[in-house]
Amino acid sequence: MTTLHSETELEALLRDIGARRYHRSHPFHQLLHGGRCSKGQVQAWALNRYYYQSKIPQKDANLIARCDDQELRREWRGRLRDHDGEVPNEGGIARWLKLTDGVGLDRDYVVSLRGLLPTTRFAVDAYVNFVREKSLLEAIASSLTELFSPGIISERIEGMLKNYDFVSADTLDYFAKRPPQAERDAQFALDYVKRHANTPEQQAAVLRALEFKCDVLWSMLDALYYCYVAPGHISPGAFVPKE
Amino acid sequence: MTTLHSETELEALLRDIGARRYHRSHPFHQLLHGGRCSKGQVQAWALNRYYYQSKIPQKDANLIARCDDQELRREWRGRLRDHDGEVPNEGGIARWLKLTDGVGLDRDYVVSLRGLLPTTRFAVDAYVNFVREKSLLEAIASSLTELFSPGIISERIEGMLKNYDFVSADTLDYFAKRPPQAERDAQFALDYVKRHANTPEQQAAVLRALEFKCDVLWSMLDALYYCYVAPGHISPGAFVPKE
Repeated sequence: MTTLHSETELEALLRDIGARRYHRSHPFHQLLHGGRCSKGQVQAWALNRYYYQSKIPQKDANLIARCDDQELRREWRGRLRDHDGEVPNEGGIARWLKLTDGVGLDRDYVVSLRGLLPTTRFAVDAYVNFVREKSLLEAIASSLTELFSPGIISERIEGMLKNYDFVSADTLDYFAKRPPQAERDAQFALDYVKRHANTPEQQAAVLRALEFKCDVLWSMLDALYYCYVAPGHISPGAFVPKE
Repeated sequence: MTTLHSETELEALLRDIGARRYHRSHPFHQLLHGGRCSKGQVQAWALNRYYYQSKIPQKDANLIARCDDQELRREWRGRLRDHDGEVPNEGGIARWLKLTDGVGLDRDYVVSLRGLLPTTRFAVDAYVNFVREKSLLEAIASSLTELFSPGIISERIEGMLKNYDFVSADTLDYFAKRPPQAERDAQFALDYVKRHANTPEQQAAVLRALEFKCDVLWSMLDALYYCYVAPGHISPGAFVPKE
């Protein structure tokens, strides 16, 4: 029923999923990067995306926890370091909080998670659970959206700096640091799945895992669009922009 | 029914559990440290204990995976580094393999886990599952056997070097490196449980967690004694000493 693809074919299928389903092409990103978001909409994006950032180390620890291969654990541990840093106020999560500070959000409010959209929480938690419960191969494959992130990040930095007077290069420090980490991590994960997806079933599972992860990111932007752009019905209890 | 203890009282109760239930006083350790084990019995001990060592990073990653507190994740990540190292052939697991090499075991055989006693596997897996499934407070409390390990380690190094001509200082490198790590980690965990066990129920859970962990270590030695000392009925499929 399903066929066994060569490694090159598998990579092409993964990249095709990225082209079709990665959130780079989501309407909310078009607005965000094109300078057509209000400050309140940018704040809502930064606030909700904070939850995603904050859960990534736990997602990665779940992967390490299931991993009998010491070499793979050691490699994957670098992701914990990248996000949590070695000391306070270092690492990806701290840099994301510079962004939420920079766009004028109260840090205690951001960290409290009180302003989150429920959809954000469900999507992010689904990702953490996926990594905890699916096969190790699928868990690794679900990280492959990083293959496509350097492109969106350069687009985002350029678009946001040009279009929003309330956004500075310092505020976007997260994105300046991220691409080399993402490229290294994505290449590792891609090599891993190409080497370890050796049956049609495993290859199909890998492709589904990447689709799932694209869905997670997409769902988060759907919710932002619905609640903060059009029709603009903010979920009860969630962040309400001041302006 | 239960009373709320002061932090000092709680620490005293934890130390009392150590005095009564830590595996330092297990008959197998008396033999091992007293020079009354055969080489085959030392090998069986090193081989089975390897499984415990090998699962510690996954145990710790399970703890990090459940931890919303970034500072705590960062602190606990040090344990992954201590055990897995930064590069191949470094860290606690690699040093344990120096020990299994040193006592004359084939490394591929050790790592294959084929020679494990079933009881070893069940006890170690119970520990990993405990950390994954119980409260974070209980997971941290279960690490508190480290409070008692520096004492047993100095006793072990001295006893094994003096009594076994097939054991060298280099073979025991694991134990030379371990006490300062264990002391630092145990002090952190002890401070944590003293600060966070704020109800009689939480304090009772912390005490039970340490008892559980003592039981894990004890069970492993019961199995070694039963199978390799007296009556000496080795479990089917498990390691059979050559001499």
